[in-house]
Amino acid sequence: MSPRPATASARSVDEYRDTVAALLAPLAARPDEQAPVPEALGRTLAADVVSPIDLPVFRNSAMDGYAVRAADVAVTPVTLPVAGVVAAGKPGTDALPAGSALKVMTGAPIPPGADCVVPVEDVQAGEGRIVVERARGRGEFVREAGTDVRTGELVARAGTVLAPRHIAALAAVGLPTVPVLSRLRAVCITTGDELQPAGAVLAPGQIYNSNGIALAAALRADSVDVVDVAHSTDDPAVFTRVLRAATAVADVVFTSGGVSKGDFEVVKDVLGPLGGTFGSVAVQPGGPQGYTVVDEVPVLSFPGNPVSTMVSYAVFARPAVRALAGLPELANGETTLLTALRSPAGRRQYLRGLLTEDGVEVISGPGSHLIAAMAWADVLVDVPAEVTSLAAGVPVRILSL
Amino acid sequence: MSPRPATASARSVDEYRDTVAALLAPLAARPDEQAPVPEALGRTLAADVVSPIDLPVFRNSAMDGYAVRAADVAVTPVTLPVAGVVAAGKPGTDALPAGSALKVMTGAPIPPGADCVVPVEDVQAGEGRIVVERARGRGEFVREAGTDVRTGELVARAGTVLAPRHIAALAAVGLPTVPVLSRLRAVCITTGDELQPAGAVLAPGQIYNSNGIALAAALRADSVDVVDVAHSTDDPAVFTRVLRAATAVADVVFTSGGVSKGDFEVVKDVLGPLGGTFGSVAVQPGGPQGYTVVDEVPVLSFPGNPVSTMVSYAVFARPAVRALAGLPELANGETTLLTALRSPAGRRQYLRGLLTEDGVEVISGPGSHLIAAMAWADVLVDVPAEVTSLAAGVPVRILSL
Repeated sequence: MSPRPATASARSVDEYRDTVAALLAPLAARPDEQAPVPEALGRTLAADVVSPIDLPVFRNSAMDGYAVRAADVAVTPVTLPVAGVVAAGKPGTDALPAGSALKVMTGAPIPPGADCVVPVEDVQAGEGRIVVERARGRGEFVREAGTDVRTGELVARAGTVLAPRHIAALAAVGLPTVPVLSRLRAVCITTGDELQPAGAVLAPGQIYNSNGIALAAALRADSVDVVDVAHSTDDPAVFTRVLRAATAVADVVFTSGGVSKGDFEVVKDVLGPLGGTFGSVAVQPGGPQGYTVVDEVPVLSFPGNPVSTMVSYAVFARPAVRALAGLPELANGETTLLTALRSPAGRRQYLRGLLTEDGVEVISGPGSHLIAAMAWADVLVDVPAEVTSLAAGVPVRILSL
Repeated sequence: MSPRPATASARSVDEYRDTVAALLAPLAARPDEQAPVPEALGRTLAADVVSPIDLPVFRNSAMDGYAVRAADVAVTPVTLPVAGVVAAGKPGTDALPAGSALKVMTGAPIPPGADCVVPVEDVQAGEGRIVVERARGRGEFVREAGTDVRTGELVARAGTVLAPRHIAALAAVGLPTVPVLSRLRAVCITTGDELQPAGAVLAPGQIYNSNGIALAAALRADSVDVVDVAHSTDDPAVFTRVLRAATAVADVVFTSGGVSKGDFEVVKDVLGPLGGTFGSVAVQPGGPQGYTVVDEVPVLSFPGNPVSTMVSYAVFARPAVRALAGLPELANGETTLLTALRSPAGRRQYLRGLLTEDGVEVISGPGSHLIAAMAWADVLVDVPAEVTSLAAGVPVRILSL
């Protein structure tokens, strides 16, 4: 299949990615929100979080055992009377009488006067007294207050994507909520009279609608809150209605289809007059692209071929979307091409690739309809616009999927 | 601080991990469920999924252009009358009259009789006719039915953790739902009179309850459905009630605290008589461990120190939990130790480590209360039981957090 020639006016991939980033940049000013710590897994901290308390909160025992004065157990064996028991969580701890022991549980406050703990394994317990069999020094098995974190010290930095270990620390210092970046709210709109919902019986000329479902999944994987996946027929009145409903609730709207050079291009036909910019990017798949700001909401318009939609998102929108979510860039890089390939001149091509130990194998044709084949790919192979063929064994850039 | 000596009867880490795996093994027989494709991101396929249709469903145009007979455009330029328009989704496509062209949009059915498509860029369009400027061969810009995937062919394999690209393929073949492994339902129960909820004003001897929140986060990160995070005082009647409520709804229950050698060990005191096994594992942190089967539900009892709870989960339960969720093992391995360290004889030690380009740095003391310090660690450094000291520069095993 010969490629469609790139138009002279086509933008480069890098140029268009920058355009999209600039379009979405104002969303960085959206207000942060407070997330309950138990629900903050995977969220990104919007500010440094410092501890409101010392941790440990109080001097406590590291062991089940006996709180004593180190001086009283310096020579062993030594017999001490047991003056009582200190349990974790029981307030009002009495001081340790000189020359005696108080039984303590792990985590229980060290009674005033005591300066070390003899573990239960190191004593012979009798009726009202213990025989300590091993000498202990001051501070042994005592956790001092504030030795984990002190009041005002950093618990986690702004920008941290909260993992279980961060949640554990935030909960331990008693914070009910933490400031996090709010999730981008997105609506995906698919267009096309031929698109039918899953499970429908297809009439001639009809296909299943996958772009909304697929794009929503890609967005959710990047921490976006997809508030709606809507569909419009090719009727401009219907598309206008669906679009306005989307911009009323979304921070950003994605459309698929209706941007090409056919006679019925509903997205271009409606958004063009609203100030939309539609044109070609020198890329395959995903050449026809458009963007508009409607009611102050950026609307990104991708072509309708399923692979084009997914590649357009990955190449043009994902970097900005992940940055707005405070997520790190996906690990991209260079590896060895294992399959010789040809590529059209003047278009940067993104081929579906499978990573192996030796490099990357191109695993399907370039057709933008090969969406089932794409499921087997884990990266896109990035072939520069000026390259028309590559031999097996050369280095290529790859983009994680 | 001297280590508590390991008891002679202590189990090894590997032995106890195997015990936990055996305890959870019956959960592999839980029934699968059908997940709607739009909600199946991150779920694990329980069976191979094959396509119920050919994709493309029908022979269609790869371009906006004109469907023609290749024989009619073998010599160019050539003028052809345009007999009509075929739009995507419009059923009832008429056959292509000989010696003429039908306008087609991308994705629209190729009309009977046509065998190639001339892209719109390669024609001069006039009133009711076109001038084709470039010769095309049979099949050019035609997508044949079934060339992406055929009816009955594999779309995704059993065991696939569904990424956006899989969701895209499953949606494109029109599947409303797919069989996935059901999520493990877990309840976490914390114990201890001294534990207070986040934001509470702490009385002397009280601390914040973090284990339930932290363990729930760790479980959710491993695709577990945490249906409840409950708390019990040290009153056995309360713990019994909370436990029975948990086993009524959960596939597996995790408890923290109450398993050590103190006088008030509510978990051990209640679960021991129910057939629970409580004892020591030769590990630090996390030595005291217990397990019970209550109402046919496995109950894993971790010690209550926050770091002990998290390390116990990571070392003993996570491998089995991830396997049951169909998730790959976390990437573990070996790296260079950057910090010299000492370790107690007879206990395998898991220290908190920070990965750098050069290896792993141990970043906090071994204390099992240092939960805030743990937030800065990304791995556990695994020091074998028989090792008592390691010099900087030696290889060590690490466990992802």
